Amino acid sequence: MAILSHANTQIATRLAALYPRLVEAQVDAYLVPSSDTHLNEYVPAYQRRRAVISGFTGSAGDALICPGGSHLFVDSRYHVQAEHEVDPTLFRVHKLGLTGEYTLAEWLTEMERQHGSLRVGFDPFVLSMEAHALYARALTAPSSALVPLSPNYVDDVWQDHPLPLARPIYALPDEVTGRSVAEKLAAVREQMERARIEVLILTKLDEIAWLTNLRGSDVDHNPVFEAYLVLERQRATCLTRVPPALEIQDALTSQISFEPYAAYASVVRRVAATTDMTIWLDPSGTTMGTRLLLPEGQRIHTDRNPVVLMKALKNANEIASSHEAHQHAAIAKIRSLARLDHLIATAQPVSERAYAEMLHEEYGREEGFHDLSFPSISAAGANGAVVHYGGANAEIVLRDGQLFLVDSGTQMLGGTTDDTRTVSIGTPSARQQQLYTVVLRCHTQLARQKFPEGTSGLALDAVARSVMWNAGLDYGHGTGHGVGAFLNVHEGPQRLATRSSEEPLQVGMIVSNEPGYYEPGWGGIRLENLYVVTPDETLPAHPSGKRWLQLEPLTLIPFDQRLIDWSQLSADDRTWLAWYHRQVWETVGPMLSDADRAWLHAACEPFF
Amino acid sequence: MAILSHANTQIATRLAALYPRLVEAQVDAYLVPSSDTHLNEYVPAYQRRRAVISGFTGSAGDALICPGGSHLFVDSRYHVQAEHEVDPTLFRVHKLGLTGEYTLAEWLTEMERQHGSLRVGFDPFVLSMEAHALYARALTAPSSALVPLSPNYVDDVWQDHPLPLARPIYALPDEVTGRSVAEKLAAVREQMERARIEVLILTKLDEIAWLTNLRGSDVDHNPVFEAYLVLERQRATCLTRVPPALEIQDALTSQISFEPYAAYASVVRRVAATTDMTIWLDPSGTTMGTRLLLPEGQRIHTDRNPVVLMKALKNANEIASSHEAHQHAAIAKIRSLARLDHLIATAQPVSERAYAEMLHEEYGREEGFHDLSFPSISAAGANGAVVHYGGANAEIVLRDGQLFLVDSGTQMLGGTTDDTRTVSIGTPSARQQQLYTVVLRCHTQLARQKFPEGTSGLALDAVARSVMWNAGLDYGHGTGHGVGAFLNVHEGPQRLATRSSEEPLQVGMIVSNEPGYYEPGWGGIRLENLYVVTPDETLPAHPSGKRWLQLEPLTLIPFDQRLIDWSQLSADDRTWLAWYHRQVWETVGPMLSDADRAWLHAACEPFF
Repeated sequence: MAILSHANTQIATRLAALYPRLVEAQVDAYLVPSSDTHLNEYVPAYQRRRAVISGFTGSAGDALICPGGSHLFVDSRYHVQAEHEVDPTLFRVHKLGLTGEYTLAEWLTEMERQHGSLRVGFDPFVLSMEAHALYARALTAPSSALVPLSPNYVDDVWQDHPLPLARPIYALPDEVTGRSVAEKLAAVREQMERARIEVLILTKLDEIAWLTNLRGSDVDHNPVFEAYLVLERQRATCLTRVPPALEIQDALTSQISFEPYAAYASVVRRVAATTDMTIWLDPSGTTMGTRLLLPEGQRIHTDRNPVVLMKALKNANEIASSHEAHQHAAIAKIRSLARLDHLIATAQPVSERAYAEMLHEEYGREEGFHDLSFPSISAAGANGAVVHYGGANAEIVLRDGQLFLVDSGTQMLGGTTDDTRTVSIGTPSARQQQLYTVVLRCHTQLARQKFPEGTSGLALDAVARSVMWNAGLDYGHGTGHGVGAFLNVHEGPQRLATRSSEEPLQVGMIVSNEPGYYEPGWGGIRLENLYVVTPDETLPAHPSGKRWLQLEPLTLIPFDQRLIDWSQLSADDRTWLAWYHRQVWETVGPMLSDADRAWLHAACEPFF
Repeated sequence: MAILSHANTQIATRLAALYPRLVEAQVDAYLVPSSDTHLNEYVPAYQRRRAVISGFTGSAGDALICPGGSHLFVDSRYHVQAEHEVDPTLFRVHKLGLTGEYTLAEWLTEMERQHGSLRVGFDPFVLSMEAHALYARALTAPSSALVPLSPNYVDDVWQDHPLPLARPIYALPDEVTGRSVAEKLAAVREQMERARIEVLILTKLDEIAWLTNLRGSDVDHNPVFEAYLVLERQRATCLTRVPPALEIQDALTSQISFEPYAAYASVVRRVAATTDMTIWLDPSGTTMGTRLLLPEGQRIHTDRNPVVLMKALKNANEIASSHEAHQHAAIAKIRSLARLDHLIATAQPVSERAYAEMLHEEYGREEGFHDLSFPSISAAGANGAVVHYGGANAEIVLRDGQLFLVDSGTQMLGGTTDDTRTVSIGTPSARQQQLYTVVLRCHTQLARQKFPEGTSGLALDAVARSVMWNAGLDYGHGTGHGVGAFLNVHEGPQRLATRSSEEPLQVGMIVSNEPGYYEPGWGGIRLENLYVVTPDETLPAHPSGKRWLQLEPLTLIPFDQRLIDWSQLSADDRTWLAWYHRQVWETVGPMLSDADRAWLHAACEPFF
């Protein structure tokens, strides 16, 4: 608690220093979005402005700083965490998704209605063009405005502001990426030509890492490096904080030239100076900062950039590497779960933190392990209800009768993993079994679903969620997200969610399947596997000639069968579960020690 | 066949007369969309330009007339019918939904690519702003263009062009509509004020009929009248082909003034002449003709107009009237099915046409019957595979062992009905039962689905369709559409489909649930009920405080249990089916004669 009070004092001081600046700039509010200069989800320490000004450390959530009282907007993953972290005398927390709550855009409209007009300051380099357009539409009074203010106002009140990491950049071999830089550049330029576009500017770090076959360590858990990329028909310029090693530059010399990160504005202005030219800016992947570097009258093509889909459609090498990565991650997680069972059985205390460290240790023993793909969630009992619980508390010891939720992932060379298991500590209750089985039925329903090409993530979200709905239950997050190949653990364009997810699933996409159940004060259940979309060859021909698709498991970790209420499962559910456990046993079993193999066999039985 | 040849000769003559006009106008193609001046789905005879120039009579499908060979684009409902109706030497039929087929927009892009540029003529008064924008985006070459050409070129080559019907307009009492014209106008104006809009122009006939509480008979099966409506803050002007009776005009005198239809352009220009004013044009419900009446620099608010959602959310009176209408329609259809069974059992021949006439006769015996809500589909055997079969052929007699698909609906005063039953003629085969049961499981899965507020039609489409997908089957149409209250049998904004259906279902919306199976040469199965969305009060509270919703049946007609393979049904399916048949029996049974009641009891058993 002392730490929290201290943090709140700091935040109050920062806010007090910020308010006069807003008055001076004649704005009623100052927007501090979660996103950073590269629209990262996980932002480097030096870019964590939203956390520094509000105290809220979650991966998503925007702040609106107002001298009369500030606001924080968080989605359902962070409703509980935001309440824990934020001082309610400084911030009103808007819990998105709850009936009657305003989104940030709706709140701008509401504030404008109350005040007659509203001027909102923002740093154009941390706001996407898409978000800017959304907020601009929210304001309709003639004297309202979004006012670009540079440099960032939070940076001015941030003592001990960390520096960018600017860590070394390394290259991946073509055997891992499956496609050379030259091939990727040619494919992107082909789409630029087809759309009659001369220049494409990339801001998002995973897109740049994918296109250049380079990786770095500038962002925790994401193997990316801070950069921009300006792609012309004849030339590609990558602007990096540190130049890659000379042998990397030499290998790419005919494809990409490297320039200092600080030269970005001048490079953009150089390409824009060419007359009669169209620049492709992906509105969700480009900041207003870039847009404002260009002349007002510049011809802009605003559309999703071609890298997004190319990156999502994994090639054979990437899929093979991902399978391998998932086997390593499964071995490690299975070992950690076996160790956990042993500790519990022998009545030794295990804290959330101790398990997380044990798991990290097991991951580290696997060849190719680079990093976690996000901070492990190790949540005992009621903490499982905090969807993105970040604690892994050393003081909280697992207790008999609790559920224990472990959501963790890795960056293994060539593949990114992400899985969640909820396990029983000691003897499960009938209610735990009942609810676990509902979540498992959602997972299974989706895992065994066949679907034709063109089916959207929204449709598949409903396939899973409909099971819960009929039980009068629901979860506040999406059913699944895209995952990179040795890249970000969250990537688009596909997502399995109830909104904005009409993107069709295609062969080669990797998605998570992670239904859940959360009850504040009681705990949470989430069951997450990653799957790669593959063609199904067993079904009769589709009437429209479309291919049938299916989800092939990447994750190979048993579900905790102590928590299954078998009477709830349909014959199809049981068949799938037995098939899945057989995959786990046959693939991972041979790679384990005798003791761990015995644990796995017991965990995977019965195979039917 | 003689008739078809004659029609094709006529069409060839018309096309031959049209081609020189295109050359003269310096366009490479002339667009003849399915839609008419009011963007109707069912178009009045005098507006059936697409049918007159192509021979294709379906309710949807656009033609592109090119001197070098013309094109017709039809969705999966019309793949078979278009082949039957169109001369392949004159038209290439593009079957949308099949892999590799181009949409009209994609085809424009492809033609432009082949020719270097493309100029496409069109009548702006039969093309929505939305469709215009779509086709404009398809053309990117600098010398390509969409060229507005007026008056309509098809009208010039159309001998014996019918006249508009211009039938009398009548008023509905407030007890039926549930809301007075004054209340409706105030609600729309409130939304205009909130969006700071001065003028709203309505083009779609069902929107005008809903807002004015008036009805007419200018379009087959839709109780609407040809009109425009120009709504200002202080004044509403309705432009009609015939003025309503004086007592109607008097009753509305303080709300709406009526002007002649021909004055539309001058009324639009009058409101546009007011300075500093924004006009609301719904891009999917307004033609480019209206847009082009306004000055280039006119401030336009392009967004869905507020009537769309208000009309979709039925009030208590409309729901009560709809229930009543469905009871009348059910009584009639049940009587017709009982008569059919009797005729088959006594080995009397029944043709498709004879059944359709019998059904129409039974509908006509019900109080409040105005019209069919669309031409009844009465399809024996293989004809059931033609999704929108229009034949009801007098020569085709139902045969033992066939499936018989009947899709029909009515306009009863206060309510619009639409249902499909597929019944067995004689003894069903195991394969018929197997496939019928798959379709029934889709229907049942959706019918008993609970879902939270905010759930989209796309999600519910997947709930139904996922059952078929796992059997390797699919249907080429949506699972459901919105339905009006004594208005159009197809209305938005909600739809249950795999695309463009993120609109959430809300309490008071009416939707169909109509999964199907179609096999060319074999036949079709479709099982369609209408449902109204109601709150569910039985489930535990939703975690986000959303209301739980469910589908309450409007249609009360038994499913043909001779066609059910009971072994395929889950316990939940059986429970729902027994519950549904009990609703049918208890509601409709008391309204039938003894003989028909005995038939219904047998059809509804077992209740479990």
